[in-house]
Amino acid sequence: MTHPALPRIAASFARQSMMQTLGAEIVTVDDGVCELAAPLLPAMGQQHGAGHAGVTFALGDTAAGYAALTLIAPEREVMTAEMKINLLAPAVGVRLIARGRVVRPGRRLVVVTAEVEAEAVDGARKLVAILQGTMVPVDPL
Amino acid sequence: MTHPALPRIAASFARQSMMQTLGAEIVTVDDGVCELAAPLLPAMGQQHGAGHAGVTFALGDTAAGYAALTLIAPEREVMTAEMKINLLAPAVGVRLIARGRVVRPGRRLVVVTAEVEAEAVDGARKLVAILQGTMVPVDPL
Amino acid sequence: MTHPALPRIAASFARQSMMQTLGAEIVTVDDGVCELAAPLLPAMGQQHGAGHAGVTFALGDTAAGYAALTLIAPEREVMTAEMKINLLAPAVGVRLIARGRVVRPGRRLVVVTAEVEAEAVDGARKLVAILQGTMVPVDPL
Amino acid sequence: MTHPALPRIAASFARQSMMQTLGAEIVTVDDGVCELAAPLLPAMGQQHGAGHAGVTFALGDTAAGYAALTLIAPEREVMTAEMKINLLAPAVGVRLIARGRVVRPGRRLVVVTAEVEAEAVDGARKLVAILQGTMVPVDPL
Repeated sequence: MTHPALPRIAASFARQSMMQTLGAEIVTVDDGVCELAAPLLPAMGQQHGAGHAGVTFALGDTAAGYAALTLIAPEREVMTAEMKINLLAPAVGVRLIARGRVVRPGRRLVVVTAEVEAEAVDGARKLVAILQGTMVPVDPL
Repeated sequence: MTHPALPRIAASFARQSMMQTLGAEIVTVDDGVCELAAPLLPAMGQQHGAGHAGVTFALGDTAAGYAALTLIAPEREVMTAEMKINLLAPAVGVRLIARGRVVRPGRRLVVVTAEVEAEAVDGARKLVAILQGTMVPVDPL
Repeated sequence: MTHPALPRIAASFARQSMMQTLGAEIVTVDDGVCELAAPLLPAMGQQHGAGHAGVTFALGDTAAGYAALTLIAPEREVMTAEMKINLLAPAVGVRLIARGRVVRPGRRLVVVTAEVEAEAVDGARKLVAILQGTMVPVDPL
Repeated sequence: MTHPALPRIAASFARQSMMQTLGAEIVTVDDGVCELAAPLLPAMGQQHGAGHAGVTFALGDTAAGYAALTLIAPEREVMTAEMKINLLAPAVGVRLIARGRVVRPGRRLVVVTAEVEAEAVDGARKLVAILQGTMVPVDPL
């Protein structure tokens, strides 16, 4: 059975051209949780060919945002107010998996965290970044 | 006259496929300062067509990293250890301009900030994000 | 001439027992700016006798909060939603000076920064920390 | 059986006058983990009598630092390079409990998180803050 917020999240996700450009997909949606994955593309590298920090950030931030969306009123959206990332290891491998999680839901502010792992060709995963930030529920534009 | 670190920065920048994908360019390099610019591309949007936070982050983080590179030994590189972004306004307009600045250079840690502005078609600029973080000098791979 | 928000800020400041315990005082209040100072007390040290990071944080965070208070409706208060601090040097000397500044005011969120300097016995100042964070206007309890 | 790092941590903790002023104590030390507790003192309040954010920060930051100390060489110390705190609820109750945890140990940087809970008179606990930051191993002064 799918989560009631999945259709909203899938529709929003489909409108994010950045997610399409990254080749990202939705893996899991549950109460206060969202997992996304994206291939580590050659076009998104830093100077040594690892994934750029901007890609790791984009995936982690987006997963955290959709985690927040599962816990707010259906007619509302969320925007990132602020986000902090600690990079633990280069993003090398075949794909990134980002898992966002709500730490404290709220009507005005939703505090979130995310973890981003890099998956090697043999399926082994390594934690490459952690994020902590704030989402703000807003009325749709 | 160009800054002595510019050739190193330009060479590193050219190897970052993410910067090419974003269409980014180097605007200014000076002691402890680096300014980058990139068009706001349709392929890099969030769900309402504004630039994705990941793009704003990528440009600000990269500008901050090259600002740090101007103040470290020529044979070394820098990596982002951590970075925090506060998003102030949607990234709408024709291009983004990111200005990175070193607040405190150091042999082990370089503390940096960055500001990212969005430029409208008439040239008007609006501050859309501020960043604060830490770069770590490392030996080349 | 004093700033119209000064009486509100002074009254709030006087109710913060932490500020009294630190021996802190208000130095300057202006639109979007607040400067506080506090002696570096022996009772507030870390393991080597420098000021504890918690003291540097407390003073910077409070200065940022009152900077925000100068730009919101008189009947409202602010709370810290989140704050990030980069520590640049040990807090040694005779006193700390924290200068908070509003980067973007807003009805729902106020983005702020702060700088904290340590002043030596001869009056020389050194930047020891920078902060970046978010204040939230709230109705009084 | 006590953790081998406990004597070092206890000695360092005893030298931190700020921890004595807060009335803080060490609750648990284990590999990559440290838990501290401190009463919510009347002298450490904000304008409504809740614990000041600086106290919550100080306890969380210190717990994270000692968590890092359990995983580095015995002759070294750690310093906070940067720390970000999201405040989730006012610090009200009889005491604060901070649990620091190492996310990624390293020779040059140790990435840490911490959670701070407020405990009511009936023993009920509420999460009031989460922290994410970086400790730097250094040689003793």
